[in-house]
Amino acid sequence: MSRAVLRPGDSIDDLRERARRRLPRTAFGAIDGGGGDEITLRRNRTAFDDLLLRPRALRDVSTRDLSTTVLGDPVSMPLLVAPVGYARMAHRDAELAIVRAGARAGTVCGVSSFTSYPLEEIAAAAGGPLWYQLYPPATSDARKAILERVRAAGFRVLCVTIDAPTPGIRRRELRSRLQLPLRLTPRLLRECATRPGWLFDYARGGAGRGRQGLPPVVRTPGGTRTTPAANSVVTADVVAELRELWDGPIVLKGVMRAEECAELVSLGIDGIGVSNHGARQLDSVPATIEVLPEIVDSVAGRVEVFVDGGFRRGTDIAKALILGARAVLVGRPLLYGIAAGGEDGAAGALEMLRREIDSTFALLGATSLADLDSSLVRRAPTR
Amino acid sequence: MSRAVLRPGDSIDDLRERARRRLPRTAFGAIDGGGGDEITLRRNRTAFDDLLLRPRALRDVSTRDLSTTVLGDPVSMPLLVAPVGYARMAHRDAELAIVRAGARAGTVCGVSSFTSYPLEEIAAAAGGPLWYQLYPPATSDARKAILERVRAAGFRVLCVTIDAPTPGIRRRELRSRLQLPLRLTPRLLRECATRPGWLFDYARGGAGRGRQGLPPVVRTPGGTRTTPAANSVVTADVVAELRELWDGPIVLKGVMRAEECAELVSLGIDGIGVSNHGARQLDSVPATIEVLPEIVDSVAGRVEVFVDGGFRRGTDIAKALILGARAVLVGRPLLYGIAAGGEDGAAGALEMLRREIDSTFALLGATSLADLDSSLVRRAPTR
Amino acid sequence: MSRAVLRPGDSIDDLRERARRRLPRTAFGAIDGGGGDEITLRRNRTAFDDLLLRPRALRDVSTRDLSTTVLGDPVSMPLLVAPVGYARMAHRDAELAIVRAGARAGTVCGVSSFTSYPLEEIAAAAGGPLWYQLYPPATSDARKAILERVRAAGFRVLCVTIDAPTPGIRRRELRSRLQLPLRLTPRLLRECATRPGWLFDYARGGAGRGRQGLPPVVRTPGGTRTTPAANSVVTADVVAELRELWDGPIVLKGVMRAEECAELVSLGIDGIGVSNHGARQLDSVPATIEVLPEIVDSVAGRVEVFVDGGFRRGTDIAKALILGARAVLVGRPLLYGIAAGGEDGAAGALEMLRREIDSTFALLGATSLADLDSSLVRRAPTR
Amino acid sequence: MSRAVLRPGDSIDDLRERARRRLPRTAFGAIDGGGGDEITLRRNRTAFDDLLLRPRALRDVSTRDLSTTVLGDPVSMPLLVAPVGYARMAHRDAELAIVRAGARAGTVCGVSSFTSYPLEEIAAAAGGPLWYQLYPPATSDARKAILERVRAAGFRVLCVTIDAPTPGIRRRELRSRLQLPLRLTPRLLRECATRPGWLFDYARGGAGRGRQGLPPVVRTPGGTRTTPAANSVVTADVVAELRELWDGPIVLKGVMRAEECAELVSLGIDGIGVSNHGARQLDSVPATIEVLPEIVDSVAGRVEVFVDGGFRRGTDIAKALILGARAVLVGRPLLYGIAAGGEDGAAGALEMLRREIDSTFALLGATSLADLDSSLVRRAPTR
Repeated sequence: MSRAVLRPGDSIDDLRERARRRLPRTAFGAIDGGGGDEITLRRNRTAFDDLLLRPRALRDVSTRDLSTTVLGDPVSMPLLVAPVGYARMAHRDAELAIVRAGARAGTVCGVSSFTSYPLEEIAAAAGGPLWYQLYPPATSDARKAILERVRAAGFRVLCVTIDAPTPGIRRRELRSRLQLPLRLTPRLLRECATRPGWLFDYARGGAGRGRQGLPPVVRTPGGTRTTPAANSVVTADVVAELRELWDGPIVLKGVMRAEECAELVSLGIDGIGVSNHGARQLDSVPATIEVLPEIVDSVAGRVEVFVDGGFRRGTDIAKALILGARAVLVGRPLLYGIAAGGEDGAAGALEMLRREIDSTFALLGATSLADLDSSLVRRAPTR
Repeated sequence: MSRAVLRPGDSIDDLRERARRRLPRTAFGAIDGGGGDEITLRRNRTAFDDLLLRPRALRDVSTRDLSTTVLGDPVSMPLLVAPVGYARMAHRDAELAIVRAGARAGTVCGVSSFTSYPLEEIAAAAGGPLWYQLYPPATSDARKAILERVRAAGFRVLCVTIDAPTPGIRRRELRSRLQLPLRLTPRLLRECATRPGWLFDYARGGAGRGRQGLPPVVRTPGGTRTTPAANSVVTADVVAELRELWDGPIVLKGVMRAEECAELVSLGIDGIGVSNHGARQLDSVPATIEVLPEIVDSVAGRVEVFVDGGFRRGTDIAKALILGARAVLVGRPLLYGIAAGGEDGAAGALEMLRREIDSTFALLGATSLADLDSSLVRRAPTR
Repeated sequence: MSRAVLRPGDSIDDLRERARRRLPRTAFGAIDGGGGDEITLRRNRTAFDDLLLRPRALRDVSTRDLSTTVLGDPVSMPLLVAPVGYARMAHRDAELAIVRAGARAGTVCGVSSFTSYPLEEIAAAAGGPLWYQLYPPATSDARKAILERVRAAGFRVLCVTIDAPTPGIRRRELRSRLQLPLRLTPRLLRECATRPGWLFDYARGGAGRGRQGLPPVVRTPGGTRTTPAANSVVTADVVAELRELWDGPIVLKGVMRAEECAELVSLGIDGIGVSNHGARQLDSVPATIEVLPEIVDSVAGRVEVFVDGGFRRGTDIAKALILGARAVLVGRPLLYGIAAGGEDGAAGALEMLRREIDSTFALLGATSLADLDSSLVRRAPTR
Repeated sequence: MSRAVLRPGDSIDDLRERARRRLPRTAFGAIDGGGGDEITLRRNRTAFDDLLLRPRALRDVSTRDLSTTVLGDPVSMPLLVAPVGYARMAHRDAELAIVRAGARAGTVCGVSSFTSYPLEEIAAAAGGPLWYQLYPPATSDARKAILERVRAAGFRVLCVTIDAPTPGIRRRELRSRLQLPLRLTPRLLRECATRPGWLFDYARGGAGRGRQGLPPVVRTPGGTRTTPAANSVVTADVVAELRELWDGPIVLKGVMRAEECAELVSLGIDGIGVSNHGARQLDSVPATIEVLPEIVDSVAGRVEVFVDGGFRRGTDIAKALILGARAVLVGRPLLYGIAAGGEDGAAGALEMLRREIDSTFALLGATSLADLDSSLVRRAPTR
């Protein structure tokens, strides 16, 4: 249980603060930071304040049910685990801790292309359906090779990132000379002077891997090391090919324009991920919650619409659901969670959000997702 | 008189600051705090800044009359005392002090379900009409038992809270491990190191109750102890039953949606309380002053409309009256008042607000409530 | 000359800061403060930021002429001296210094009802046309007595304040227990510990008045002392009477509603003063620059429209002129000026503003008031 | 190369901070400051936040081409070097360093009327087409004399500043008693106590000029010294004369009103420079990016439209290009650059911006200027 990690009254911001105190600046900045001047990073948060909730009166909400399905898979709540890189910097158990926490929460987990454990090992640790997040490589052969391995490992859904043709300008990473896998440079060691716990954990290496020194933080399916700054140009042709190669559902992640959805849907995909890459790619783009409504309108129910970006509270998540998202994905909260307390911390983050979603439903006068409608939210005059 | 408590130039914010200095953090946080990240708590205040007053010229305002009636009861001004829990944490005399202050001010007082003195004792202390604030319990028997006791104690109006099916996530309370009745835990004693006055007052126990140690802060009519985090699901059936059981006026408190008023009115109630529970329940809902105009429109005079939430100044109150509220209820100002100076502090808070309302009327060119019309306020461009 | 008082690059804000350092807190607060929570005091300033200037290209602006007339009197620029009370607290020479500075600047001066020198003495010190600011007393006899004395002293214009039926709630004054005339209470003496210059100047008494101890700061025309918190109810009947009694122009000061202008004009007055009393009366009213355009529209040229409230820069003043004001009145800048350097300080403030207006005209592509039109300003999207 | 000057993750703001630390306050303020209260200086920056970028999906952006032409001259990117005065205060090599950096970047450079080196020397140092920025003097003879010299020196484009009939009120310059050429006054020497590097560099004099003590910072083409606060009244007649005298392209810089563009274009000019003079002239005017769209509309392609003012990031520049600017000019970034590291610093600033523009194009889904259209930007609700 996550009792030792979470304290009464904690919010995700508290977990973040605990992660900030535990991690060296380089690692925290890589997890926490965004692209450019972090305008969109802040906007992803503040945009929620322009949406006001409008609770309904006189409803019997004594029992609530948050469960739903995503792409056919049942989940205990409309909150999924986003694929995140960098997890090894936050905690030694990295993706293993995260997918175990996801399983405990009864939800679906995304797994990043940039992991510290082989994807088969992650898949084995998981207890529920997994999404594989793909940065499609440049050649068809490489794409096929990855998909085969991913399929063999048992992943259910292919989640194709389409917004990373070039890495975002992430100043925090650049300023700390981040290289992956992290090396214990003098700079990093200096930062660790006040973070001995992290250093010990990190230097101890991967769980049960014997003596391999510092394990590679990043290990692509093909086995080559690479930096997590992906360079992945995804055209319609690439998507069409992936559609042919992959039997299961495909989600395109990184959509921000409603007028493009018709074309995307026509490629035979199953889900659209409204995402600005956690505000880590192009800065000065809208918050995802700002564009969600027009994208939901445009998609008109033909595929499921997911959203991520700055979700930190039950009310944030409820707003997206009210606006038509099938489910919300959270990434950084899990990384803060494992930084603060490993698997228990991640499980605690999910549990905290579940309680907040449940409380929001009750106070909104809704007992299930079917009770949500657009009257429950109002765009507020900005102030 | 409240001379020793109030100083020239004081605002309610000054009283609040004095309460903050006098109370241990746990007690002050329980009184002062809100739900979630306190977005609505702040919005309840800042929303007033979007409404500008438009004074009339050339009116003879040498004499003003603030009196009116609420649900048939005459009051000296359109400002009522909201029912508030937690009062015992602010001052030993708790609700007794508050209702006495209300009587001195010639206004109506609400009494919370969560009081530190038996409701009969409070009723005996009061000098004017009282409202009983009810969290309807789950069973009809329990509801009937309460109403009988409330009626016997002489309460005039039943004020039914409909926005508390589950407690709000109040982080300040959770972080201080608030339990009611307050126990002198090591944590609380540490906080009291710089608040010996409060500790002495609190530890001394209830007035004239003999040796019962720490008196329960919360004592429901049925005599059972409970935490003040109510779990009260109120459906239309419950309201209909209450309507049958209670002869006097009924106010439904916690209304935030104009489109629901027709149904609420059809249940035979007498008043609607526009309220977001002092921003203590669902966070990220509108300020009450924002939704007041549409609710007044919707009600169209069929019942009286009351409002609470963030009112701290005469101009705040005048804005609500101009927008159609019958009267405004204030809660925290009374708690700050008793924390700062017991009954005199509470009376001082009411007197301060009366003077501010009176000054606002004079400067607006209005001599009574009949002079108010919608031309006196303008929605400002937000900045 | 004002060389010693002003420094290159100074703004009115710099003068204010110098006044703040020179005056005891009580005196500075009485000059600088506003009503209520000073929402309107701030708004009077920030509202200018919502108006953007739109300079014209290709104009020959090598020579500029700022002169105009106000109510028939020629002035060197469309900037007048507002009547201000409290001047004795800022500097021993008080109104004498201000009207002399006004004369040096070639403009018209208003003289408050609350002065430290007899109005005849002030009139004698002045070198140009004067406005007498009147809080009409409650009886017709008292009004007549004042007007006779004012006329005899040679005042040109009667400026009737209509927004002070009751004093505003000025917390800074109340908190410092301000009483006028100022007495050297222990509290004030404590404040003077770091302001010996002010104390010496103040204690020395009036210029050339012999031994009268602390001179009364406030001396009404009738000779009685009173606090500057006026209680002056002004109805249409009072204005009609004043119109009969006074031969010269009459300005009604304190107008904030466009829909009332037709009635005000019909009373036979000559000017309208758009004013919120320097934000010292009712708080939470609009900034004067916000309501100026609609009032100018409503007046439609039948009388001259003046405006005051928060003007501190040449661009502020140009905006009001573009929006249709005949001239702008400034009050506090003169008080800051005399606090910083007596008559030279006041003259410096006026000269600074003249240079700023002139620079604004040149950069706007305007050589005189005739060149101003509404295309030179645009309402900006607030941010 | 500029490796020593720039560090990974640097933004132009970092260069600015380095300049602030290296330069005495007088010099930095002269470079960094704006007119009046610097409202427009801030607005030039914050206005970008109201424009959100809308990336396109599924484009092949593996190769990008930023090249274009400006007034017929090919440039490697749509970013030009603005003419800037004061350069000698930032670095001894002043304009020489800047034009060399511009040549390295493959772009066009503007050269100010106020330079520390003879314009022929600057022209000789440059490696690409140059614009000569002209404050037209008051007499026709003087204008002809300048144009002859400018033509003889090989300048391609005449860039006529039309917004400086009188100097802006630049408080930072006035407060530091800035006089040009800078003299080593006691005040400046005091500021240099912590900036010995700058003092040594400055006192050493011009490159290879022998013993002339402090070189004049400002040297007009006619050889007379003057302060950089220009007084240049430019009428349509003056422009018409310049059009006759100058064979090459003419740009009018300082345009802020769309309704004037028809007249300006009719004078036979080739380009319009949307500019508020780096917010150094009239304060409280709009940001240039705010008025750019309406000016582009009004010009309707008849001449090229350029823009400057507050551009500090690749996204800022991309927004202007999307809104129809032919190219963006940056001035202060070059001054920060030479202050931080001479020619390499300036080259680094241009290189940094090129990389940011390129990254923005890639992430927007654009491979060249032809791919930009208005759908890529959206006006955001201000917050």
